[in-house]
Amino acid sequence: MDILEQKIKVQGDIVRKLKAAKAGATTDEERASLSTQIKDEVAKLLSLKAEKEASSSAPSTADETEAEADKADAGAGASGQVVTPWEVEGGEDGIDYDRLLRDFGTQEITPELIARVEELTGKPAHPWLRRGLFFSHRDLKELLDAYEAGTPFYVYTGRGPSSDSMHVGHLIPFLFTKYLQDAFDVPLVIQMTDDEKFLWKNMSLDDAAIFLRENVKDIIAVGFDPAKTFIFADTDYIQHLYPNVLKIRKATTGSMVRAIFGFTNSDNIGKWGFPAVQAAPSFASTFPHMFGNRRDIRCLIPAAIDQDPYFRLTRDVAPKLGYLKPSLIYTRFFPGLQGAGSKMGSSSPMSAIFLTDSKKQIKKKIGACVSGGGETIEEHRANGANLARDIPFQYLEVFLDDDARLEEIRVEYSAGRMLTGEVKKELIAIMADLVANHQAARAKVTDEQVTEFMSVRSFDHLGLAEFRDYAKKQTGKQKKKKNKKKATPAEPAAAAAPTSTA
Amino acid sequence: MDILEQKIKVQGDIVRKLKAAKAGATTDEERASLSTQIKDEVAKLLSLKAEKEASSSAPSTADETEAEADKADAGAGASGQVVTPWEVEGGEDGIDYDRLLRDFGTQEITPELIARVEELTGKPAHPWLRRGLFFSHRDLKELLDAYEAGTPFYVYTGRGPSSDSMHVGHLIPFLFTKYLQDAFDVPLVIQMTDDEKFLWKNMSLDDAAIFLRENVKDIIAVGFDPAKTFIFADTDYIQHLYPNVLKIRKATTGSMVRAIFGFTNSDNIGKWGFPAVQAAPSFASTFPHMFGNRRDIRCLIPAAIDQDPYFRLTRDVAPKLGYLKPSLIYTRFFPGLQGAGSKMGSSSPMSAIFLTDSKKQIKKKIGACVSGGGETIEEHRANGANLARDIPFQYLEVFLDDDARLEEIRVEYSAGRMLTGEVKKELIAIMADLVANHQAARAKVTDEQVTEFMSVRSFDHLGLAEFRDYAKKQTGKQKKKKNKKKATPAEPAAAAAPTSTA
Repeated sequence: MDILEQKIKVQGDIVRKLKAAKAGATTDEERASLSTQIKDEVAKLLSLKAEKEASSSAPSTADETEAEADKADAGAGASGQVVTPWEVEGGEDGIDYDRLLRDFGTQEITPELIARVEELTGKPAHPWLRRGLFFSHRDLKELLDAYEAGTPFYVYTGRGPSSDSMHVGHLIPFLFTKYLQDAFDVPLVIQMTDDEKFLWKNMSLDDAAIFLRENVKDIIAVGFDPAKTFIFADTDYIQHLYPNVLKIRKATTGSMVRAIFGFTNSDNIGKWGFPAVQAAPSFASTFPHMFGNRRDIRCLIPAAIDQDPYFRLTRDVAPKLGYLKPSLIYTRFFPGLQGAGSKMGSSSPMSAIFLTDSKKQIKKKIGACVSGGGETIEEHRANGANLARDIPFQYLEVFLDDDARLEEIRVEYSAGRMLTGEVKKELIAIMADLVANHQAARAKVTDEQVTEFMSVRSFDHLGLAEFRDYAKKQTGKQKKKKNKKKATPAEPAAAAAPTSTA
Repeated sequence: MDILEQKIKVQGDIVRKLKAAKAGATTDEERASLSTQIKDEVAKLLSLKAEKEASSSAPSTADETEAEADKADAGAGASGQVVTPWEVEGGEDGIDYDRLLRDFGTQEITPELIARVEELTGKPAHPWLRRGLFFSHRDLKELLDAYEAGTPFYVYTGRGPSSDSMHVGHLIPFLFTKYLQDAFDVPLVIQMTDDEKFLWKNMSLDDAAIFLRENVKDIIAVGFDPAKTFIFADTDYIQHLYPNVLKIRKATTGSMVRAIFGFTNSDNIGKWGFPAVQAAPSFASTFPHMFGNRRDIRCLIPAAIDQDPYFRLTRDVAPKLGYLKPSLIYTRFFPGLQGAGSKMGSSSPMSAIFLTDSKKQIKKKIGACVSGGGETIEEHRANGANLARDIPFQYLEVFLDDDARLEEIRVEYSAGRMLTGEVKKELIAIMADLVANHQAARAKVTDEQVTEFMSVRSFDHLGLAEFRDYAKKQTGKQKKKKNKKKATPAEPAAAAAPTSTA
C-alpha cells in the first residue's frame, strides 16, 4: 500500500511537471504534444488510484506470472532479437534460434525423437523434420509415449485470414500438418481467427468473412481428409469455444497477458482477451462433436515458433482447468525472396511466391532474388556460393524432396562448380510445379466442400468406441513392427507436398 | 519515453528496496509477506518494460478516457461513497443520490417527464415513477421524442443468475420492466449473465446453468408476454452477441475499463472483456431475429443506478460503431430489512424477504426489521416515527399501491398516532400477498415455457413491416389523444405487480 502511494506520488509529480512544461510551451505543436502526454499520464495516475482502491479486495497475482514474465522479458532481450506473434526481428546475424530455444524454454528435436516418429508411423520422417525446418518442440516425447500406449491425439493448427494472397511460406505449416494427419492417421482441427484479424487490423468483420472463405479453399486444396478434418471460423464456432474461452480467461490475469504478450493499457480489450480464443482449441473438450466426453485425448500443434507465447499461456493454464497440456512442434521462419530478414507480403509482390503466381512470375521473382553466389563468374568459381545467405538454396532445402540431389547441389554450389543461375533454374521448375499443382487442386475446391469442412458435424468414424479401437490397433501394429497401411489419399487431390524419397 | 524510463527506474528502486528489506527480515512471516510484495512489484516492473517496448507501435489512448476517468474517480470520491456494479457503500448518511447524479452525470426524472410518459402511454405513470423510486435517467426525453415520431424502441434488462433465492428487491426492475412492456407495448430482451457470474464468483458454468433456469422461471412468473419477450443466457446466445461484442471491444482500451470499472492487472482477463458483453444487447443489431436490419430502433434500459458504469461505456462507444446510444432509467437501491445500508442475501435469511418465503417467515422477518418508531409507546406517541430510517414504511412506499392510504400512514405514523406494529401488520399482508401470488404464478411456469422464452425464434408479429405499421398507428393514436387499448394480459398470470390506483 505504501509502495502504491509512493507510485501515485511519483506519477502525480510527472503530471505536474508536464503541466508546467505545457504552460511554458512556445509553439502550438509543443502544446499539443504535451497535451497528449498529459492525457496519457493522467490516465495512468487514475489507473494507479483505481488500483489502490481495488487492491484491498483484489486476488493475489498468479504464481506463475513472475517466472513467465522473466522468460518473456528475456525473449525480447539484450541481443535486440524480438520474436512475438506480431513482430519477428532478428539481431544483426538474423534470428538466433539457439537463443530462442533458451529464452522460450522449448526443446530441440533430436535425431532420437525423429527415429521415434518413424518407428511409430512406420514411415520415413518428413524431410522437414530430418532437415531441421521443424526444429523445436514441447512435450513431443510425452505425446508419442501416450500414442504408443494407445491414447490417440488430434492435430490443431490455424490461420488468421488476410486479404493478402497466401504465399508458399503460408503453405508450410499446412503441408506439414497434412503429413502428420496422414502419417499418424489422426483427426485435425483448423482454426481461422477472423476475430483476431478484426481486432488487430483495419478490417471489417464482413471483409474478414470473405477473405476467410478464400483462404479456406487454399487450405482444403492441400488435400486434407474431410472425414477427419474440421475447419472453423472463430465467429462461427464461438458458441462451442466459449465455455473453454471463459475458463481460460478466468485463470488468466491482466498481468500474465501483459508480461507474455506485452499488451499495454492502450491496447483494446479484445486483444487482452484474445489469447484465450487461440488457446481453447488446444483442449479436446472444445470439440465435443469430435471427441465426446473423452478427456485423455492429447493435442499436437504444428506452428511457427513466434506463436509460442500463446501456447506458453495455454500450457500454464491447462493444469488449473484439469486439462492436458498440448504438445508443440515448431518451425523456423521461412525467408522472403529479398533475404533472410525480409518480410513477405502482397504489398511488395517481389518479396514472395504467391499461390496465385504464374510460371512467368515465379521465374522473374526467383531470377531476381537474393543469392549467395559470387559477383562475377570468376569470383564465384574461385570462392563458391555463401549458402547461409543464398535464398535459392534455402528454398531448395525446403522444397526439393530428393536428399541425394540436394546434397549434390550443396557440395557443387558451395564449391563454385555450380552457378547461381543453374540453382535458380532448378528451383523455378520445382516452385512452378508446386504452385501449378496447388492451383489445379484449388480450382477443384467447391463451395459445397468449404461448407462441408466447416460444418459442425458428427465425426462418426471418430466415434468414441472406434477411436479407442483404432488406437489399440495402432499400438498392436507397432508391437509387431509392421508398417502401417497407408491411408487412402482423399479428395481433393493433394498438392505437390514434399514426401520423403529416402 | 523519458517518463516511462523514469517510472521503470522508480519501480526498480522499489523492488531493490523490498529485496533489501527481505534480506534483513527476521521472521518467516515477514519474509513470506515481502516475497509476495516483491513478486507483485516485479510483475509491475516487467509490465512497465513491456509497455516501453510496445509503446512505439501502440495507438494513442482514446480521447474520452480522461474525461470518463475523471468522472469515475469522482464517483468513488471524497465523501467515502462508493457505487460500482460490485460494491455499493454509502457515506455516514447513506447514499447521497444528488451527489451520485452529479458524479455519474445522469439526469433527474422531472414531473414534466413523468407527465410526458403518461401522455404517450395513455395511462397513469407507474407509482415507482411518481414516488421517485425510479429517479434518474439518460436520454429518456430523446427516446420518448423518437417514439412519438413513430420510431419504436425495445426494453433491455438483465440479471446475473445466482444460487441465492431471488428476493423482492430483485423483483423491482422486472416488475417495472413489465409495466414498460405493457404501457408502451414494446418488445423486451432479458440478458442472463451466466458468464459474468462464472468470471466473478466461485461458481462453475454447470452450476450457473442450473441457477439460471431457476431464475428464469421467477422472471417468467412476473408475467411477460412470450410473444414479445426474448430471454437469453450469454453462453447460449454468444454466437449472435459476438459480432457486436468484438466491435465494442475493438473500440475500448484497457485504460477505459481500468478508469471506469477500476480493474487492475490482478483481475482476470475475462473481467476486462465482460463490459462488452453487457453492452452489446443495447444495440438492436444484436437481435436480427427480432429487428432485422433496422438500425433506427432505440433501446431503453431500466436498471439499478450501480449499473451506470456499464452503460456509460456503452454510450461512449455507440457513436464509434454508428449505433444509437441507449436510454436509461435508473432505480434507487432497495433497502435490506436490517436498515438502509444493510446487505440482502441468502447468507443472512433475516436480511430480505425471499420469493420462496412462507407467510410465517415474512411475518417473522418484518416483525424483526429495523423501524423508526419510538423505543416505548410513550416516546412514540410523543415524537412519532422517524420515517427516514423506518424500513416498514419504506417498503410500503414501494409496495403499497394506494396513494391515499400511503399518505395517511405517512401522516399518522410520523405523528406517532399510528404504531410501528400497525404499520408492520399492513406491510405483512401486502408482502405475503405479493409473494404468494408470485409463488402461484411461478408454480405454473413449465420447462416448455422456459425453452420457448429462450429460443432464438422469429418474432413474426414484430416483423419489420408490422413493427413499422405499429409505430405509425401508435403515433396516430397519440395525436388523437385517445387511450391506447390495453394489451391482453398474457399467461402466465402476472404476479401482484403494483399498478396505479389513481
